[in-house]
Amino acid sequence: MKLRLTSDEVIEVNQGESIYAALKRSGIYLTASCGGKGTCGKCRVKVLEGGVNITSQGKLTAKDKEAGISLACATFPINDLLVEIPKESRLIVGDKISIAKTKDLAEYLRSYGVDISLTIKSVALDLPHPSISDNIGDLERIQRALEEKGITNMRFSHGFTSTAVEALRYSNWKVELTYVTGDVIYNEAIFLTSKEFCYKRYGIAVDIGTTTVVVYLINLLTGQIVDVGSTYNSQMRYGDDVITRIVYATEGGGLDELRDAVVGDINTIVNSLKEKHRIETCEIETAAVAGNTTMAHIFWGLNPATIREEPYIPTLNKFPLWKAGTAKIEINKQAPLYTVPCVASYVGGDIVAGVLASKMHRNAEVALFMDIGTNGEIAIGNNEWLMTAACSAGPCFEGSGIRCGMRATPGAIESVKIDPQTYEATIGVIGGGHPMGICGSGMIDAVSEMFLTGVLNQKGKFVKEKSSKIKDGEEGPEFVFYHDEKLNRDIVLTEVDIENLLRAKAAIYAGVTTLLGEVGFTLDSVEKVYIAGGFGNYINIERAIILGMLPDMPLDRFVFMGNTSVTGTYLCLLSEDLRREAEDIASKMTYIELSVSRNFMDEYMSALFLPHTDMNQFPTVQALLQK
Amino acid sequence: MKLRLTSDEVIEVNQGESIYAALKRSGIYLTASCGGKGTCGKCRVKVLEGGVNITSQGKLTAKDKEAGISLACATFPINDLLVEIPKESRLIVGDKISIAKTKDLAEYLRSYGVDISLTIKSVALDLPHPSISDNIGDLERIQRALEEKGITNMRFSHGFTSTAVEALRYSNWKVELTYVTGDVIYNEAIFLTSKEFCYKRYGIAVDIGTTTVVVYLINLLTGQIVDVGSTYNSQMRYGDDVITRIVYATEGGGLDELRDAVVGDINTIVNSLKEKHRIETCEIETAAVAGNTTMAHIFWGLNPATIREEPYIPTLNKFPLWKAGTAKIEINKQAPLYTVPCVASYVGGDIVAGVLASKMHRNAEVALFMDIGTNGEIAIGNNEWLMTAACSAGPCFEGSGIRCGMRATPGAIESVKIDPQTYEATIGVIGGGHPMGICGSGMIDAVSEMFLTGVLNQKGKFVKEKSSKIKDGEEGPEFVFYHDEKLNRDIVLTEVDIENLLRAKAAIYAGVTTLLGEVGFTLDSVEKVYIAGGFGNYINIERAIILGMLPDMPLDRFVFMGNTSVTGTYLCLLSEDLRREAEDIASKMTYIELSVSRNFMDEYMSALFLPHTDMNQFPTVQALLQK
Repeated sequence: MKLRLTSDEVIEVNQGESIYAALKRSGIYLTASCGGKGTCGKCRVKVLEGGVNITSQGKLTAKDKEAGISLACATFPINDLLVEIPKESRLIVGDKISIAKTKDLAEYLRSYGVDISLTIKSVALDLPHPSISDNIGDLERIQRALEEKGITNMRFSHGFTSTAVEALRYSNWKVELTYVTGDVIYNEAIFLTSKEFCYKRYGIAVDIGTTTVVVYLINLLTGQIVDVGSTYNSQMRYGDDVITRIVYATEGGGLDELRDAVVGDINTIVNSLKEKHRIETCEIETAAVAGNTTMAHIFWGLNPATIREEPYIPTLNKFPLWKAGTAKIEINKQAPLYTVPCVASYVGGDIVAGVLASKMHRNAEVALFMDIGTNGEIAIGNNEWLMTAACSAGPCFEGSGIRCGMRATPGAIESVKIDPQTYEATIGVIGGGHPMGICGSGMIDAVSEMFLTGVLNQKGKFVKEKSSKIKDGEEGPEFVFYHDEKLNRDIVLTEVDIENLLRAKAAIYAGVTTLLGEVGFTLDSVEKVYIAGGFGNYINIERAIILGMLPDMPLDRFVFMGNTSVTGTYLCLLSEDLRREAEDIASKMTYIELSVSRNFMDEYMSALFLPHTDMNQFPTVQALLQK
Repeated sequence: MKLRLTSDEVIEVNQGESIYAALKRSGIYLTASCGGKGTCGKCRVKVLEGGVNITSQGKLTAKDKEAGISLACATFPINDLLVEIPKESRLIVGDKISIAKTKDLAEYLRSYGVDISLTIKSVALDLPHPSISDNIGDLERIQRALEEKGITNMRFSHGFTSTAVEALRYSNWKVELTYVTGDVIYNEAIFLTSKEFCYKRYGIAVDIGTTTVVVYLINLLTGQIVDVGSTYNSQMRYGDDVITRIVYATEGGGLDELRDAVVGDINTIVNSLKEKHRIETCEIETAAVAGNTTMAHIFWGLNPATIREEPYIPTLNKFPLWKAGTAKIEINKQAPLYTVPCVASYVGGDIVAGVLASKMHRNAEVALFMDIGTNGEIAIGNNEWLMTAACSAGPCFEGSGIRCGMRATPGAIESVKIDPQTYEATIGVIGGGHPMGICGSGMIDAVSEMFLTGVLNQKGKFVKEKSSKIKDGEEGPEFVFYHDEKLNRDIVLTEVDIENLLRAKAAIYAGVTTLLGEVGFTLDSVEKVYIAGGFGNYINIERAIILGMLPDMPLDRFVFMGNTSVTGTYLCLLSEDLRREAEDIASKMTYIELSVSRNFMDEYMSALFLPHTDMNQFPTVQALLQK
């Protein structure tokens, strides 16, 4: 059967194949955090012509169904179809905004005063041809040549050896030998390439978030970002937070399922990038990955059970340089895979990478680092000391658990202004065009605007009589920001969404105040606040203060950093000095367990209001409200 | 269906299953050098009752068929059967003779003046339990304890790490950590065992012959042989010699087939030994293996193509300590597998192990070492120099390519005396009882006796009128040593068999004389001759001289060593000093390529007679004939 898209692409559908599977086979990836099980409601498509069988409508509203929206993974063509794929359903590979944001990373790397020094090195060998009188083995020939160049202690893996015979002869005994020389006291030969034909050398930096997976494709010679890709972490189908994932992992076979899910996500992105840039699997020669401690354990197939049980012990914090093949990442099997070290069970490599990316560990001034991802981790300190804590914030700022939530990709509402007279919303959309959902920075804007204009009260409930934009939806009152005529769909924030946002911001704010209290500091002593997280182009700091998520401090102390986990991973991929700095950060950082802190729960309860029960902590907001 | 054996065992046969497959599934292994393809004619069984479908009768004679013999792999039961399995068809695991011969190996090891020092070491760790205040990761905890004991540079494999969590908790933080500390400049942790429950520690020494595979199961604490097992190398179905195997390996998929064949043989033996001695897979913790260069390459999955092409280059001679899991040997996956180093493309680790076992490299006297296996390798030298050469002798002394040939296992004719008056043969059978075939030493006896009594002429042809024991068989004249009434089968040597034996002995003798000539030595300067090979309890040196296989020297200079390849492998498994000596031997030994030697072909042609065209080289035989 034929499947024609409104974009005029035509693909073939096999008997018994879902639209999702057919599209995937044809290289058109849809976001589907459940991996195509009909439960996450993300792979929405609109069937305009043709007959289908539908096996699931999970998460679709009555309106969606009316509008002809169905889930691609649960929709099976009966005959030829005409289908529209909403932009928000597509997996994002190489969107212009992300690339624009990251293109200066090579320069940022140089700002650290370090050179590119990978976990791998290459050496050119021009070997004498074997003869009856010089008939040593191929490996012994390589070894002799290396020793002549002063390179000793070379270890030869089985994978290397089994490909050496052909590689040597194919390249007429002129080869580049690549070897691992990372955290180890020996060198390990990993592959041979031909001196003549090898121009391209790539690496990847991977951020495994609890909610989002991001991959940077990097030119190893220049340090430049070639492209980026991102998607939801398919582990989400097993639960939103790390605790439910750990529980699932300890059930029979659960660990492998979780591992396969996230490895599948990474490979989906990596394979799209390889295809797009015509890169061979073997040409991606090294990788670095960061994630929180649970994500890192699951990624490496290590049982995370003990992370959850008192006294909260991970299997390891400092990961050896294992190989991409062991992790089943579809790059050069022999590529060493650097894992950014973790601090403790609930502060992982993503935070170490973030601190590295902020440079706070290099400066004398006391700084606060806040990563507003799924978990909400905080670090405070300077070049002499570092302390850290984790507060479970939940994934809503990454678009998960919010009806129209989405990541900060094109089509996301990233800014909202509400007219105090008419209560009409003016929205800013990433990439322009009509909106498809709302991302973290849009949510912060929206809630603070609704609060300032009185559409929301201090408890986060709608004041219905204020605006005609407040409608009764299926889950209770909701504020409509945009009505999509074509899809007959509203982009809204519901009261349930707002409850989620308040819980998340309260956890973050309470984390900051509790950690400051633990070290006996006040907000005045903090000279810089680094904000990290999967927001859009920017975060409106003023609005985040109105929301009560960020402390009420002078705006010039705030620095918005974006996804610092992937930035730090990028830095570690490319520099041995920075890998050492990451390890220093990990071992230097003192972890405070908030769950055993008496103050944290009090602080959290107080922070569940807009902006806070103690308005003295938010003088700026008080002044605004009085205006 | 039921299959009842005359030994009163009863097993179930599935629909469509051959007798061979059904027996194998029930743990009764038959020898089948073709691996059950109906071609080698070794898995003979006698169906006494019941109906069968027969799909092949490869290598069965008319008499066999008359006697009701069929091939188990090509015989498919139609209904319940009563079957007799001749002893010669059974795979040999733990026969008493081999064990008797090897039981003193631990003492032989001590005669080298070395202690047991494996490629693995174990260290007992009594770790402090983790707590909130001591919450480092499991691996970091192990690392800390190791550093306290002064053990640094420990590398943790992924396999080790993924099992550490459970092992630590199961054993209540008291563990034995086993690590590899072989040829490497770092230590690699490979597994944890519980201090309380671990008493047994095993290793295996494996000899991969072109024709035969032998496995010794060794108690690592005492060095004692627990048991032995042996079988034909199933690669034989792809050709008898290394050259045809190399050719086959370079065809599509051939390398994997050959690898799987021999790995299957080793695992068949290892699994029988584990079952017999109730040993867990993980309790076999280290292994050593020797084979000729081609066997070693195929075993490790390395393309042997270049071994065959001028200038005859192996991929490597000195193998790193790769893991049992990489080789797919079914012992502890993490067990390091030591490969005895090779010298060149046609002199492998089996010869290095043999020289090591002979101790000729430690003595001042000039000695000759002859390994009369499938290939026929020779070494000459002393503690100052060593030279070596290979002459392709073929596998007939191991029972292959000889109608009634078999290995030196119970039931084999190992000695033959022919009455010069009656021409009646008196035979000696290994283990007593009725004979099932004839092994290498029996063949040497038989041919020399037949020659001395005039039954055979100098060209190796039967003098038919001499004896009524010479009959006309299907392949021409044959000498009958024994008639098996029960199976209605003759144990014979045919004229074709004798041609094969003459070619083999000529290659060996010509190798010796050519190599001696190359180094400018005569037989007089050789003070010891070490004979290795898969013969029985002994080789009758006098008879081997009459055959013209061994040089005509005083008998007291000859020492029969048996399978020196597996003995040397055993020594390497247990001693680091001897592993170093093996490496010294391999690098010290000068290889002479006989195929480019002008003299070799001349010498070979002259040696194709009994004992030789130049009778002056065999004065003792001349004297005997004159008697």
